[in-house]
Amino acid sequence: MKRKIRMGMVGGGPGSFIGAVHRIAANLDGQIETVCGCFSSQYEKSLETGRELYLPDNRIYRNYTEMIEQEALLSADKRMDFVSVVTPNHVHFGPVFEALNHGFHVVLDKPMTFTLKEARQMKEKVEQTGLVFALTHTYTGYPMVKEARQRVLRGDLGKIRRIYVEYPQGWLAEDVAESDNKQAGWRVDPSRSGIAGCMGDIGTHAFNLAEYITGLKTVELCAELNTFVPNRRLDDDGVAMLRYEGGARGLLAASQVCIGEENSFFIRVYGEKGGLEWHQMEPNTLIIKWNNKPNEILRTSNGYVSSFSAHNSRTPGGHPEGYIEAFANIYRNFALTVQCRLEGVEPKPEYLDFPSVDEGLRGMQFIETVVASSSSSEKWMKII
Amino acid sequence: MKRKIRMGMVGGGPGSFIGAVHRIAANLDGQIETVCGCFSSQYEKSLETGRELYLPDNRIYRNYTEMIEQEALLSADKRMDFVSVVTPNHVHFGPVFEALNHGFHVVLDKPMTFTLKEARQMKEKVEQTGLVFALTHTYTGYPMVKEARQRVLRGDLGKIRRIYVEYPQGWLAEDVAESDNKQAGWRVDPSRSGIAGCMGDIGTHAFNLAEYITGLKTVELCAELNTFVPNRRLDDDGVAMLRYEGGARGLLAASQVCIGEENSFFIRVYGEKGGLEWHQMEPNTLIIKWNNKPNEILRTSNGYVSSFSAHNSRTPGGHPEGYIEAFANIYRNFALTVQCRLEGVEPKPEYLDFPSVDEGLRGMQFIETVVASSSSSEKWMKII
Amino acid sequence: MKRKIRMGMVGGGPGSFIGAVHRIAANLDGQIETVCGCFSSQYEKSLETGRELYLPDNRIYRNYTEMIEQEALLSADKRMDFVSVVTPNHVHFGPVFEALNHGFHVVLDKPMTFTLKEARQMKEKVEQTGLVFALTHTYTGYPMVKEARQRVLRGDLGKIRRIYVEYPQGWLAEDVAESDNKQAGWRVDPSRSGIAGCMGDIGTHAFNLAEYITGLKTVELCAELNTFVPNRRLDDDGVAMLRYEGGARGLLAASQVCIGEENSFFIRVYGEKGGLEWHQMEPNTLIIKWNNKPNEILRTSNGYVSSFSAHNSRTPGGHPEGYIEAFANIYRNFALTVQCRLEGVEPKPEYLDFPSVDEGLRGMQFIETVVASSSSSEKWMKII
Amino acid sequence: MKRKIRMGMVGGGPGSFIGAVHRIAANLDGQIETVCGCFSSQYEKSLETGRELYLPDNRIYRNYTEMIEQEALLSADKRMDFVSVVTPNHVHFGPVFEALNHGFHVVLDKPMTFTLKEARQMKEKVEQTGLVFALTHTYTGYPMVKEARQRVLRGDLGKIRRIYVEYPQGWLAEDVAESDNKQAGWRVDPSRSGIAGCMGDIGTHAFNLAEYITGLKTVELCAELNTFVPNRRLDDDGVAMLRYEGGARGLLAASQVCIGEENSFFIRVYGEKGGLEWHQMEPNTLIIKWNNKPNEILRTSNGYVSSFSAHNSRTPGGHPEGYIEAFANIYRNFALTVQCRLEGVEPKPEYLDFPSVDEGLRGMQFIETVVASSSSSEKWMKII
Repeated sequence: MKRKIRMGMVGGGPGSFIGAVHRIAANLDGQIETVCGCFSSQYEKSLETGRELYLPDNRIYRNYTEMIEQEALLSADKRMDFVSVVTPNHVHFGPVFEALNHGFHVVLDKPMTFTLKEARQMKEKVEQTGLVFALTHTYTGYPMVKEARQRVLRGDLGKIRRIYVEYPQGWLAEDVAESDNKQAGWRVDPSRSGIAGCMGDIGTHAFNLAEYITGLKTVELCAELNTFVPNRRLDDDGVAMLRYEGGARGLLAASQVCIGEENSFFIRVYGEKGGLEWHQMEPNTLIIKWNNKPNEILRTSNGYVSSFSAHNSRTPGGHPEGYIEAFANIYRNFALTVQCRLEGVEPKPEYLDFPSVDEGLRGMQFIETVVASSSSSEKWMKII
Repeated sequence: MKRKIRMGMVGGGPGSFIGAVHRIAANLDGQIETVCGCFSSQYEKSLETGRELYLPDNRIYRNYTEMIEQEALLSADKRMDFVSVVTPNHVHFGPVFEALNHGFHVVLDKPMTFTLKEARQMKEKVEQTGLVFALTHTYTGYPMVKEARQRVLRGDLGKIRRIYVEYPQGWLAEDVAESDNKQAGWRVDPSRSGIAGCMGDIGTHAFNLAEYITGLKTVELCAELNTFVPNRRLDDDGVAMLRYEGGARGLLAASQVCIGEENSFFIRVYGEKGGLEWHQMEPNTLIIKWNNKPNEILRTSNGYVSSFSAHNSRTPGGHPEGYIEAFANIYRNFALTVQCRLEGVEPKPEYLDFPSVDEGLRGMQFIETVVASSSSSEKWMKII
Repeated sequence: MKRKIRMGMVGGGPGSFIGAVHRIAANLDGQIETVCGCFSSQYEKSLETGRELYLPDNRIYRNYTEMIEQEALLSADKRMDFVSVVTPNHVHFGPVFEALNHGFHVVLDKPMTFTLKEARQMKEKVEQTGLVFALTHTYTGYPMVKEARQRVLRGDLGKIRRIYVEYPQGWLAEDVAESDNKQAGWRVDPSRSGIAGCMGDIGTHAFNLAEYITGLKTVELCAELNTFVPNRRLDDDGVAMLRYEGGARGLLAASQVCIGEENSFFIRVYGEKGGLEWHQMEPNTLIIKWNNKPNEILRTSNGYVSSFSAHNSRTPGGHPEGYIEAFANIYRNFALTVQCRLEGVEPKPEYLDFPSVDEGLRGMQFIETVVASSSSSEKWMKII
Repeated sequence: MKRKIRMGMVGGGPGSFIGAVHRIAANLDGQIETVCGCFSSQYEKSLETGRELYLPDNRIYRNYTEMIEQEALLSADKRMDFVSVVTPNHVHFGPVFEALNHGFHVVLDKPMTFTLKEARQMKEKVEQTGLVFALTHTYTGYPMVKEARQRVLRGDLGKIRRIYVEYPQGWLAEDVAESDNKQAGWRVDPSRSGIAGCMGDIGTHAFNLAEYITGLKTVELCAELNTFVPNRRLDDDGVAMLRYEGGARGLLAASQVCIGEENSFFIRVYGEKGGLEWHQMEPNTLIIKWNNKPNEILRTSNGYVSSFSAHNSRTPGGHPEGYIEAFANIYRNFALTVQCRLEGVEPKPEYLDFPSVDEGLRGMQFIETVVASSSSSEKWMKII
């Protein structure tokens, strides 16, 4: 009874970078087919994108409500299985709730919601419905990030002491509010992005990556957010000192004004017995560090990696896998889990290793706390 | 009248690395759909793979002859547009000729044929039929390889003097002839691989990359091939000194016994005014070198890259694109060219920038010459 | 009237790493000769070291008071010109004051003093006497650090926004208080090291490097210091968020429990127009970063570097210069300045580019402030 | 009876890069003092350099004959112990023979002589006299090169199969014969440099490094040398395929026209069990490569390195040591060996690990053979 899993997309019209990436990621393994969508609030644009995807006009919808309602009326062998929501942050809650209400699984771009309150509701809703929900914290999709997590969890590094996670970008170093850069526009607009700029866009990735790899929860933090570009209304830079449960200490830095940096996300973690280092721009390498013996260079797809890492690569070592493959890993694991539902079997642990509502809620808690801390004269603030 | 281009595959059954990569590459951009295939000489295995790809049983064939003949009988809106041939080298010529004879376009894995004689025939045949033909010299699909070529062709480096192209791997450092590694097995067997081992498998990539980037043709060479693993019947290592038209000198090294090397293919080119360096394992970086000013780090997808490079990337700078994307670029450009045929328009120069029969013939000439040179006491040998 | 400058050393007996480095650095350019010393509080050890340096026994002293007084009685053509003080922090103030009182120039290891109060007194004293004083903040001696400073000062990067300076080491990740590691022992002992451990030892270097390169003064900070190793009495890890004059923001991280890190000191600085990055462990490279053009790789000794950088290298590009050469640059510039005094000429600006009492006082202010901030519930604390 | 070893220098006058490096290297460890010299064929220049070194005028000589004869007449507690010869190649033989005839030990810059015939005579002479002789093949002075050798010799890599050694530079990419670059001038002049240009200057380093690390002797080679710069009279580029005793195969590439390369000397060696890689421009790192486990990053001065490596470093790990230290290691080991002679004790094996006449003769054999092979139509040529 295996078949391709059927996707309907909300958002991702002309000029959307992230929508295109979602589609490529969904295509890659041949396990998902796009069957419908409403790609833009303007119907003409939605049609344009839908036709480029070779969709029939009757599966290109005017808005997400229409899409979800109409698809729900189709027969089980035709209607979409899940909705992929790739809109700006302020249009996450609506389509996800409608989808869940009609029994559709969901893939959602991060951050999960516009507000923390919405996030709590969404988590509750997903848990109530029991539907499959994936949040595209892409960077946890990399094979060597999964390897890092496995090695920390199995104790190779000993008790964790110190975490540095940094995410410098430079693409918002100049004023873009008036530019026609579709990506930039909404990210610097609080009515579409939410209360955080840089911290919501990339700080949440950093926060998520550190908790994912170490398995530790942040307890409190002390932050300063900055806005360097004149007239910008949201933070474009910030730093937070983090305190984790069990005594580990973290440092999180994110910035979008670091000229010359593309997407230089990196993390270093040190425990009582060893350390590790991973860089998003050279994602197939993981350095493991030791006290009295040489540091080691672990590479994707080699025989010594864990099943969680191996499951998420497609080529032999030395054939670089990148951002799109990491993204596709989330779609693939999501689809494999949905497939197991269809077949009535238990998904493997490796399939279930994708970010979901818990990670989404943590991200929104981080955003609320980091923004509150920045404007507070109090030094330490508990995670809200 | 745009529609997806329809692919039928020959080869790529259970355990085939390269077949799976071809399919992922074809899927990635959503412009190609797999409609049929004969994936193995054993029908059961062919069925197994075809069903995993969600093909109906009536489009899963017993052999390539059946597939090509049956597909040719289908209506134009159903039958495949092209055949992708991903079999071992000794099964290239047959399916390609049958496909061309029935009017199907072709994608073929490299090296092009089993013998140089076949290569000459295939080139002639493709030119006669006028059909679209792509040879998957993957590495020329990388955006920064295309950037390198454009910069050399427009004269940035001045007249080329010196080329170093090196391709060390380690995966055949031990005896694999009796192993169940499907990739390894046929590559060390002259009855399936041809007269060269390492030089046919990866030396041809190195040869191709150097000619692609510089636009120069090799005129003569002096080679030594070695077989380090006991009882192996083909070369697993070799070096060639190359002389190019116009006086440039090249050095080509390829080896499959370099323990600890994954796929460390790299090239350096130096002209009278500048130099460049590119490494396959960090493919999104191209170093440009100068005499009296700092060397420069060029990166995929930035505003300063040429249209040929920009056309072949999918994400903003800093989101690593890898081997699968490079592979997909060949499929995408092939598909865009076929699409132009369907629409009756002229393909853009960027679309036509994929390897074809000329590169295939050059590769087979290289193989014949390098093998002949190795066993000759004559120092220099003209390209055969 | 040129002659070698004559050095007397206080500290640096058997087992002292830093004393040996001072001597090698002083030797390197052949402009300084060691003429006397008291190398240990134990006379036998002092004699042992002095004889290894081929000193006559009558120039090997029992303590620094004796040395300074006796040398002051020698004729001008024999007596030392300066004292090099390489003792633990609690024995900085005494020998320096005696040396200054007797008219000797001084080289001193960092941090300058045991307390901030001493630092203020020492600065006043040096200014009163007008003697030449160098503090060995080694890392500002690297040619590419000097290049970084020159490029920032001349405006290449525009107004500075963001500074990250990080200094992870791993050598104190385990308990060393009882070990016979002479370096480790006093550094974790507050009676010899002062109120800070990691922050005094390496945090001061990081603080100094950031102020040196940017020319900006830190105004306030918010810090957390940690002690991870059980029973350790001083910090072995810490982070500070920094606010600079003019609005720039800094992040300083230093740790001695990062297992697998040797001496991985690095800095990144971003302004409105460009950025830069430098790593101590690859010190001959400076990356300059741009918005719409490729990042550049600057290298020691190339024609494009400033006179300040060129003056501080000894070999052509590509012949790596390291830590010892950086250290020697401080000694050499100090000696050139003393030489100019002897000759009655004005030193070149390049000669005067070595750390002195201002940097020393800043370092002690940093230590006091960072320790106070760490134990305060107040978020921001002005530099004391 | 320990005392400083006394050096007299031949060559190294104004504008000499290598002379200055020899002196710095000799100074560094405080075990050698420069007591006399004849630094130039022009007495005024010799005086100028000698006075800069604070030598008395009566120890600054008009020519090497005068220096050697006069020094030989001085009392044992004053006269030099050894001569350091840093002249262009055509002035190596004369001063070395005179020095040996008068009982002085010798340090000599490479290549050893002007001709192979001279090299054979020099080797015989050194062996007859039993004097200590060091040849400054600098690159074997690096701690991690010594580590590489020890690991190969103790069998970590298994039987060696494949060696790649490459030495690209760019500084002679343009015509310099008429320039006032003193380094460049004689190197492109056959009357001072000998029959080889690039191959004599840097090819010999590459040849030496490969034999040093592997302990294998080259048996035959096949070479092509090129001259890319118009009107140049010697090779400025070349490649040789090498066959070693026992069946290992080597590739040696050297070039001085690779624009943008500084001194990018690197070597990779692969055996049946493992591999290694070392780059001169990041000399404190040695990568060790394995088949089924992660590659390892070995670093200078760590506890896991051999006694040969540890003996040749001066600072803890992470404090980069460079070219000058590598150079100084040859002087230091030479001086330690001379010191042992003075004391009548047996030098440790670590002290004796510096290049001498055997390496010098091998280098001259390489030069003769590689030049002969290049102009021969014969493919393989035995080492002459």
